[in-house]
This record gives sequence, structure tokens and C-alpha cells, in this order.
Amino acid sequence: MSNIRAIITAHPNQGDELDVDKLVAVLEAATACAQTCTACADACLAEDAVAEMRDCIRTDLDCADICATTVAVLSRRTGSNLTVVRAQLNACIAACAACAEECERHADHDEHCRLCAEACRRCEKACIELLATIS
Amino acid sequence: MSNIRAIITAHPNQGDELDVDKLVAVLEAATACAQTCTACADACLAEDAVAEMRDCIRTDLDCADICATTVAVLSRRTGSNLTVVRAQLNACIAACAACAEECERHADHDEHCRLCAEACRRCEKACIELLATIS
Amino acid sequence: MSNIRAIITAHPNQGDELDVDKLVAVLEAATACAQTCTACADACLAEDAVAEMRDCIRTDLDCADICATTVAVLSRRTGSNLTVVRAQLNACIAACAACAEECERHADHDEHCRLCAEACRRCEKACIELLATIS
Amino acid sequence: MSNIRAIITAHPNQGDELDVDKLVAVLEAATACAQTCTACADACLAEDAVAEMRDCIRTDLDCADICATTVAVLSRRTGSNLTVVRAQLNACIAACAACAEECERHADHDEHCRLCAEACRRCEKACIELLATIS
Repeated sequence: MSNIRAIITAHPNQGDELDVDKLVAVLEAATACAQTCTACADACLAEDAVAEMRDCIRTDLDCADICATTVAVLSRRTGSNLTVVRAQLNACIAACAACAEECERHADHDEHCRLCAEACRRCEKACIELLATIS
Repeated sequence: MSNIRAIITAHPNQGDELDVDKLVAVLEAATACAQTCTACADACLAEDAVAEMRDCIRTDLDCADICATTVAVLSRRTGSNLTVVRAQLNACIAACAACAEECERHADHDEHCRLCAEACRRCEKACIELLATIS
Repeated sequence: MSNIRAIITAHPNQGDELDVDKLVAVLEAATACAQTCTACADACLAEDAVAEMRDCIRTDLDCADICATTVAVLSRRTGSNLTVVRAQLNACIAACAACAEECERHADHDEHCRLCAEACRRCEKACIELLATIS
Repeated sequence: MSNIRAIITAHPNQGDELDVDKLVAVLEAATACAQTCTACADACLAEDAVAEMRDCIRTDLDCADICATTVAVLSRRTGSNLTVVRAQLNACIAACAACAEECERHADHDEHCRLCAEACRRCEKACIELLATIS
């Protein structure tokens, strides 16, 4: 039960550039995805088959970093910066899609990869939906 | 409805070094606190009285960075690193206490500061409770 | 005198996907830019005219976060992930251009903005040059 | 040839809380250490003996995150927050010491670990020297 919606709507400048529901959806999904990818990378590292998990660890780490930056950039509403917001959403969509694709290969054997693929797909979808309203 | 507990308990090395309930509580609180502090810093920046919010913006930004690092370090369970975990929890407690104290001064006028102070106190408490089990 | 080139060329997988000179240039420029933007945001916050520096602080913070993520993603050479690398470079170019443009407005009065605009333009240029070799 | 000293001394509030030479030394060392640890983690991941590098990858990632946060917190000079600065320096010292110790075990075989251990020891030392002036 996060307070993402509450803190976002308490901002003195609401503006009308971003759809609040879709913005909150991105912030919730990207926050969850960053933590899930960090944890999945470490769980992959602990697997006996670590040598086969190299690409998964790398895409997890990239996705964690990019999602965390998406949360930071999208949490800021001061000033107008739609070009940067758009580029960051595109980077996030690319990272989530790459990580989901990789994790889905291991989803049958590794519960952490199954959970991570889900978190990535949810974040990818939320970013695509927000991006559609500003492109 | 985050899946922090699910991803943490899907890790192949459960170990017994950290109490899982208290670990999950820190991860949930620090994840929320990082985003809340980032958003509060930006909301303070947009206030008419921005000149009086300088210390609040600074403690918000410090707290956001330190909480995000706490989430990353605590999400990793591979290898044993209790000295680092302990030092990181101490840094997080200091940052959350400083930010809560500052935000509480503005809580009557600024809803974002009230929400942020709450998020910081929750994270501070969760870190203190986890730290108590490993010191 | 950083050791970015040394650590990058010590990686067991050199691959041939990225031009090493241009990669090192991005890593050096983005590392410097992330720190410079963080410091510039805080220096702007301390200015008497803080109310006029709001957009500058916001673009500084976005640029700091995005440059730091660029360093992380580009420092990883395991696996192949050119779609993500490309999207991250595009986000970094957008963030550096926006921040440079904003800081250039204050460069005559504020030495930190002059230095920051320079760091952003250097990073923007390095990213464009690396991107040109992989697009 | 970074401009860390230039941007730090361009801040409108110089204060006298932190020794500028020692502060710049921490910022330079921690900036380099964050990037080196990120690159070392990825290089370890690409080694044939990845299964033996697990602890090294984990300490590298922790150290990268903590050093990056040290750079952010120490780059800010607005407001007074020595309790947080001190706690962050302690976390950074713990992370650098743990990572240096782990990387030193592999330094004979892996050049990236040798470089990383050096970067960690340099950062650990710089943090200890700054901390000594404020404790």
C-alpha cells in the first residue's frame, strides 16, 4: 500500500502534461521492477547454474538501474521536460522488454525469474501507456 | 501490493542471518521512502517559499539516495556481508531521522512534507528493528 | 587520472560491438557529468535567486541520474544488449542537451552553471559519437 | 582531468565544516571506485570461473552503490548534515574494505580485481581521512 498517488497529487504544480493515473501506474510498476530485478540478479548469481544465467544477471542489473532512474525522473514535476521524459520512457521500455524476454526463458525453473519477468512486463506496459499520451 | 516478500523468499540461499519479516519490512519501507523523498524534494522546489525549503530539499535528496542504496544492498543475499549491511542500516537510520525531523517542521503547511516525514519514520523504525537482530 | 580505460580493457569479453575509444570517452564524460550535475543542483539551491533556478535544479537532477545509469549500463560488456545501450544513449543525449541549454542561460553569472554546461555538452558529444558507430 | 575541485569551490556556501582538499579526494576516489566496481562485477561475471566469483560480484555491486551515494551526499554542501555525512562515510569505508579484501584474493589472476582492489583501498583511505577531521 504505497503512497505514490498521495505524494504525486500533493505537488503544488499539477500541470496537465501527464495523465496522473498513467503516471502513478508507471511509478508503482517501475519502483517494484527496480527492486525485483536487483533481487533476481542476486538470486541468479546464487544458482548452481550461474554460468547459464550470465545474460540474465546483466539484463537484470541494467533494468534495475534504468527503472530506478525512471522513478526519479517521473517523480519530478517541476519545469517542463517532455523530451527527456519521453527518452527515459523509451529506455525503460527497451530495458524491461530485454529483461522480460531473458527471464521468461528461465521462468519454468526459477520462480524469481518468473516473478521478475512479470514485473518487467507490467512496467513495460505502464511505460508504453504513459508514452502514448505524450508522443 | 508489491512482490517484495515473494522475490526475497524465492532466493536459492535463504541463510538464517536476517529475519525475513524484518528484512521485508525494511525493503518495503525503504523502497517507498526513496520515491517519497524524491517527490517531496521536487514538490518543495515548486513551493513559493522555496528559499525556506532548502534544508528540506537537501535532506530529501540525501535520504532518497541512501534509501535506494539500502534497498539494493539488502535485496542481495549472496555471500555474507553483515558488516556492510549494518553500516548501511546505520546510514539509513541517520538519513531518515534527519529528513523526518526537517519535514516535520513543514508538515502542517505542506502535505508532501507530512507524507514524507511519515515515510521516513516508518523506514527509520524498520531499519532499527532489523539492526537490533544482527548487532 | 581515472582508470576507466584500464578496467574496461581488462574485461575477459572484449567483443567488437563497441569502439573502445568512444566507449571510454562516454564513460569518462558521463562519470564527470553525473557528479557535476549533482553539485550544480546543490549550488543552484544555495543561490539567493533560488526561485529562478528551479528549472535548472530539476534538469540537473534528471541529468545526474541518467548519466549515472549510462555509466552503469555502458560499463557492462557481458551479453549483447545493443537495443538497450542505444536507448540509454538517446536518453543521455536528451538529458545532457536539456541541462546544457538550461545551464548556459546562467553561465555568465554562475560559475557552477558554466562548468556544468561544459560537462553536459562534452557528455552529449561523446554519446552522439558512440551512438553513431552502433546505429 | 575531472573538474571536481572546480565545481566544489564554485558553490556559493563554502562553509568551513569540511576540509576541501580531503572532500575533493573522497569525491575523486569514490567516483572512480563506483565505476570500477560496476565494471569489475561484470568482468567477474564473464570469467570462466564465475561460480568462484560470486562473493566478489556481490561485494562489487554493494560497493558500487554505496560509493555512488557517497559521491551524491558529499557533493551537496547546502544545509548542515554532519551526522548523515559521518554515517555515509562509515558505510563507504565498510563497503570499500570488504570489496578490497575480496578482490585482493583474485588480484594475481584477474587484472580487473587488482585494479578494483586498488580503487577500493584508495577510496577507503580518503574516507577515513575526511572522517578523521569531522569526528
